[in-house]
Amino acid sequence: MGMAAPVKIIAVGDELLEGRTLDSNSRDIQRALGGHAVQVELVQMVPDRQDAIVQALDRTTEGDLVFMCGGLGSTPDDLTREAVAVWGGVDLPEDERAMEMIRARYRRRGRAMHPVVARQARVPAGLRPVANPVGSAPGLVGRLRGRHLILLPGFPAELNGLLPLMVAELRGSGLLPAEGRVLTYRLAQITELALVDLCRPVMDSHPGLKWSWWVTDWGVDLRVAAPGGCADDAMPQEMADALEAALGHHVFSRRDQDLAAVVQKMMLARAATCGVAESCTGGLIGGALTANPGSSGFFRGGFLVYADDAKSKLLEVGEADLAGHGAVSEPVARAMAAGCRRKLGCDYALAVSGISGPGGGTEGKPVGTTWVAVATPSALFAHCYRFPADRRRNRLLTVAAALDSLRRVLQFGDDADPWSLTAAWDFRA
Amino acid sequence: MGMAAPVKIIAVGDELLEGRTLDSNSRDIQRALGGHAVQVELVQMVPDRQDAIVQALDRTTEGDLVFMCGGLGSTPDDLTREAVAVWGGVDLPEDERAMEMIRARYRRRGRAMHPVVARQARVPAGLRPVANPVGSAPGLVGRLRGRHLILLPGFPAELNGLLPLMVAELRGSGLLPAEGRVLTYRLAQITELALVDLCRPVMDSHPGLKWSWWVTDWGVDLRVAAPGGCADDAMPQEMADALEAALGHHVFSRRDQDLAAVVQKMMLARAATCGVAESCTGGLIGGALTANPGSSGFFRGGFLVYADDAKSKLLEVGEADLAGHGAVSEPVARAMAAGCRRKLGCDYALAVSGISGPGGGTEGKPVGTTWVAVATPSALFAHCYRFPADRRRNRLLTVAAALDSLRRVLQFGDDADPWSLTAAWDFRA
Repeated sequence: MGMAAPVKIIAVGDELLEGRTLDSNSRDIQRALGGHAVQVELVQMVPDRQDAIVQALDRTTEGDLVFMCGGLGSTPDDLTREAVAVWGGVDLPEDERAMEMIRARYRRRGRAMHPVVARQARVPAGLRPVANPVGSAPGLVGRLRGRHLILLPGFPAELNGLLPLMVAELRGSGLLPAEGRVLTYRLAQITELALVDLCRPVMDSHPGLKWSWWVTDWGVDLRVAAPGGCADDAMPQEMADALEAALGHHVFSRRDQDLAAVVQKMMLARAATCGVAESCTGGLIGGALTANPGSSGFFRGGFLVYADDAKSKLLEVGEADLAGHGAVSEPVARAMAAGCRRKLGCDYALAVSGISGPGGGTEGKPVGTTWVAVATPSALFAHCYRFPADRRRNRLLTVAAALDSLRRVLQFGDDADPWSLTAAWDFRA
Repeated sequence: MGMAAPVKIIAVGDELLEGRTLDSNSRDIQRALGGHAVQVELVQMVPDRQDAIVQALDRTTEGDLVFMCGGLGSTPDDLTREAVAVWGGVDLPEDERAMEMIRARYRRRGRAMHPVVARQARVPAGLRPVANPVGSAPGLVGRLRGRHLILLPGFPAELNGLLPLMVAELRGSGLLPAEGRVLTYRLAQITELALVDLCRPVMDSHPGLKWSWWVTDWGVDLRVAAPGGCADDAMPQEMADALEAALGHHVFSRRDQDLAAVVQKMMLARAATCGVAESCTGGLIGGALTANPGSSGFFRGGFLVYADDAKSKLLEVGEADLAGHGAVSEPVARAMAAGCRRKLGCDYALAVSGISGPGGGTEGKPVGTTWVAVATPSALFAHCYRFPADRRRNRLLTVAAALDSLRRVLQFGDDADPWSLTAAWDFRA
């Protein structure tokens, strides 16, 4: 494979230097580049000042592939276009193609264009605009002073809308290395350490590969890469098979799909419907199940039964169970799931009731204690987790556990207890 | 007060350049410095390579205050100590004070010290160790080649354990400025451009202040800072008053509170309860209202009525309204809010029904068309928005619009139409 260009990232924005925002953009750029196959050499974060942006560009060298994000908007503190023009010693004319992209976007939305937005149509001579499928500011690409520049908006949604287009173009033009073979797995109901233990035997028997894992909202992602350009036999099929066997039912996706999208695909495939009954998550499970287009094809709705009286009022959970076992208990979780399925007339129902913290924990039911129940057309299963984190994270872990338990039932059968499978997750009560 | 030293941060670690980890350390350092009073000039992220760390140090200049985080552990890829010694042209002897700090920590925990940990006791000549209250690796501080260096471990918990000690010492030695006056406002139902327009007159009449605004999930945040160290009369009270008047009812917080926390505070203050009826948001509003500890004091629960038959089944929304006006209509939104309040027996109810996209739009009801209704103990209000973004963002904008409309009712009275106030937001149908 040909020598790949060194990649440098410049993230522009006062908010990145004043403790206001975490820089997720350079992370997203790194992932779009194939993460571990291409290690970025340098990330610079600089404030919304023309001189600071120019200095950052001066720290790049000829032949670099330079991603810049931020400062392409229409407010006075958006200075990336101007700084690039000054650094490159080129003009900053209004570009008719860019102006048309912006006009087209406003036309599609039947809205009037605020005059200052015209600033977004100015393009440093030598660069060209790329239509932004999400926001109004076009991306800008081209060569200047021996660097290949890619200018992206700082708003994450807009950046991620443009990234795939940009990266595909770079690969096409050979500026990015052909990726060696890469295996990607997304796993749920497993901890990072437990995953590493599962991988260990395969790691030891197949040296020379690059392994990385990182915690996500759904669980843990695993990536195994053959060093860029090295022959595929660095990663023989039997190695992939051994890894698959080790990871087993924890894998919910071998691509970039999130857990809600996987559940949706399975639901639509069997024309099934589902609903939710949420206590501690307050709606986050329904929110996740409706995040992807097409969710109306399977998601009917649900019940937020945060207060105890709501549990009995809306889902006819027995007062006796609530009084005798408490809201966070197996009988209540089961009654919630059954009641949700009955009242909505859906095929599957998820129910969760837990103590997210920081308050509400007791000796017998510490913070993190969470019951999850799944009602299928032919069975009703429940399981108790004990999540180890803070309120925010415990709620996310509950969403992931509920969705993945539904995924397991859809994958292994309506009568298969999703928790009878060996689980490497150690968040068990 | 004397001129403050420019601050630069160097974050070391492969995981920061391969899409694995978000760099929270430089954010934490920035916050510890007083965020907005001290704007960091440059953040560099470099991989675990000695040459890369040396190059990052070469990009600093004499007089800089340089924070470095990461690479102080005991594994072979921890190279910050070595790189600093090489860059500074100094030795890297084992430091008896550092060794004693490490031994003391192991003694306290009654554990034997693994031999490799001794690496953590090596200190570049000219720097001195600072005991780490959290981890074993001491922090290192001192002057080298005209820079004031502060070396911190990369584990966030250890870094945050050492930071306060370091910053206190820096303030004591006058290396950090006294904080200038800062005004902070969090606004909802306004766009960034509209906010800038509101600010313009005050900006023009009070030059020399630092203005910044950034989009959040709730709306837009605004910060106005008197340059660090300049006299407070750079920001006279009449200026603050004029700004307050211009921003008006869009302001939901003058501190760091999020919109859900503000609503919760108001709800608890009047011992009121609320519920939600969500269609397009699928539970995100309930999820937001239960994000903060203590939400059980006011949030009762709600209804996820994603499918039309769920709207009629759970909330008795009239079939005639659904058929005649469609699910995304004023009568349906009103019926949802009224039904939610009635069935839950709560004081206030929020209802939303919209077309988040990408599909489902029509000529008369394009993607983004969203009805929000608020039921109060004495009135029922509804309003139609037309949000301009993609599915994900349209849903977040809906959550913010709903919560802020409830906030307005709580702030201005149960009979005050939250949408009768002049609104600079241009997401109106």
